[in-house]
Amino acid sequence: MIEEITSTQNAKVKKWQHLTTKKGHQKFHQYLVEGWHIVSDALAAEQPVVQIIATGEQLDAHQRELPENIETFEITPEIAKKLSDTVTPQGIFAVMDILASETIDPETATGAWLLLDRIQDPGNIGTMVRTADAAGFRGVVFGNGTSSRYTPKVVRAMQGSQFHIDLTHGNLEDWVKALEARQIPVYGSALNDQAEDYSTVTPQADFGLILGNEGQGMSERLMTQTTTNLYIPIKGQAESLNVAVAAGILMFKLNQKLA
Amino acid sequence: MIEEITSTQNAKVKKWQHLTTKKGHQKFHQYLVEGWHIVSDALAAEQPVVQIIATGEQLDAHQRELPENIETFEITPEIAKKLSDTVTPQGIFAVMDILASETIDPETATGAWLLLDRIQDPGNIGTMVRTADAAGFRGVVFGNGTSSRYTPKVVRAMQGSQFHIDLTHGNLEDWVKALEARQIPVYGSALNDQAEDYSTVTPQADFGLILGNEGQGMSERLMTQTTTNLYIPIKGQAESLNVAVAAGILMFKLNQKLA
Repeated sequence: MIEEITSTQNAKVKKWQHLTTKKGHQKFHQYLVEGWHIVSDALAAEQPVVQIIATGEQLDAHQRELPENIETFEITPEIAKKLSDTVTPQGIFAVMDILASETIDPETATGAWLLLDRIQDPGNIGTMVRTADAAGFRGVVFGNGTSSRYTPKVVRAMQGSQFHIDLTHGNLEDWVKALEARQIPVYGSALNDQAEDYSTVTPQADFGLILGNEGQGMSERLMTQTTTNLYIPIKGQAESLNVAVAAGILMFKLNQKLA
Repeated sequence: MIEEITSTQNAKVKKWQHLTTKKGHQKFHQYLVEGWHIVSDALAAEQPVVQIIATGEQLDAHQRELPENIETFEITPEIAKKLSDTVTPQGIFAVMDILASETIDPETATGAWLLLDRIQDPGNIGTMVRTADAAGFRGVVFGNGTSSRYTPKVVRAMQGSQFHIDLTHGNLEDWVKALEARQIPVYGSALNDQAEDYSTVTPQADFGLILGNEGQGMSERLMTQTTTNLYIPIKGQAESLNVAVAAGILMFKLNQKLA
């Protein structure tokens, strides 16, 4: 049974809209994802999809792939527009549970980890998660002050990589201490040549890499706690690199020992 | 003499708004840039700044640095909001001439060149120009089908790098032919491992590097004309990299012989 919803004033529609905001995430412990690419990735990765919401057109298009045991709603294109973060919505959404257990213990974590120190821009955060996935990283730690990972722009930019690698929230100082206590190096990233040229680093299989705020870079305090700080030599007149590009260059230099 | 404008309906305000659109660029051969960072970069690089537009607050803040020989207008915060592409406008803008002579001859071009094949997203384009600058590239060629370089989002993401390196529009097939005719290699970028692993390439001082459309990659035809096509091995489950991140990884691998 697929329930049809035709009014943009329907209470469910209002709740779903709420699930695109931080307040909604806190209140309901759920968030909304948009687009078939992400919905199908979530289903394939057996993520906690609790509802599927789609226009008739989308339901027809994905009839065979949509599971029968998940509550499904048919909506109008107008409602899709209300729920969408894009100009031309595809017309398919899923409500996902935010699991309380999504915390990873830095005292046992292995592999390569990207640590985000107060990164603000949703596009940057999403792109960094997608790149960490492509680089073979184990996961991404969202440090305090980094934007939420459940807002529509972040979710879209991650392109499904949030279901491929581990994402966790954590105190970055705790992470640095816990990794270093096990002789796992943590690389900071610096904006100037007081640090070590990134191209001279010998990669290994377990490490942490910290990227910092778009304007200010990493916190000074954190920078004193890392094993080494790396910088990417700038050759032209640009003052800096976009943080997601810098993260990509560093991750694909450091990932040589990763599977 | 600074002319004060207080009405959002003023004809000049309407023209300036028009200069944030492609139609306006074609009609007036001018475009609008926003923010002190870019305005000051344009002035420092002796770019064709024809008017400066700022709130009283911004005029006070930059009084000493603003040249007296450029027509200047004082606007209200409401007008700044009308002209701005951002949620919280800084309140300073410049009108720039689009010069007809901004074409570079591929038959004499030297150094490293980034060639954009039908790149669509303004943020990606701007970030790629900024990264090309940081990587020591000579310039960026906007191939047919690549978005305009004068729209607000592109201008903002370039962060002034448009005044540091050469930007030109061109036919990419002509560029490939002209560079290869002088034994300058042109690297394509492929999305799969049919191509050569980028990390095995030996960099040199003169070359071209092509990045392609976000969804489809480079055109098949162009790919057959390049010297070699490169790919970046993906280790996780991500299907691909963001094109600006991929461009950053490739440029910072290939830039080792650049000054």
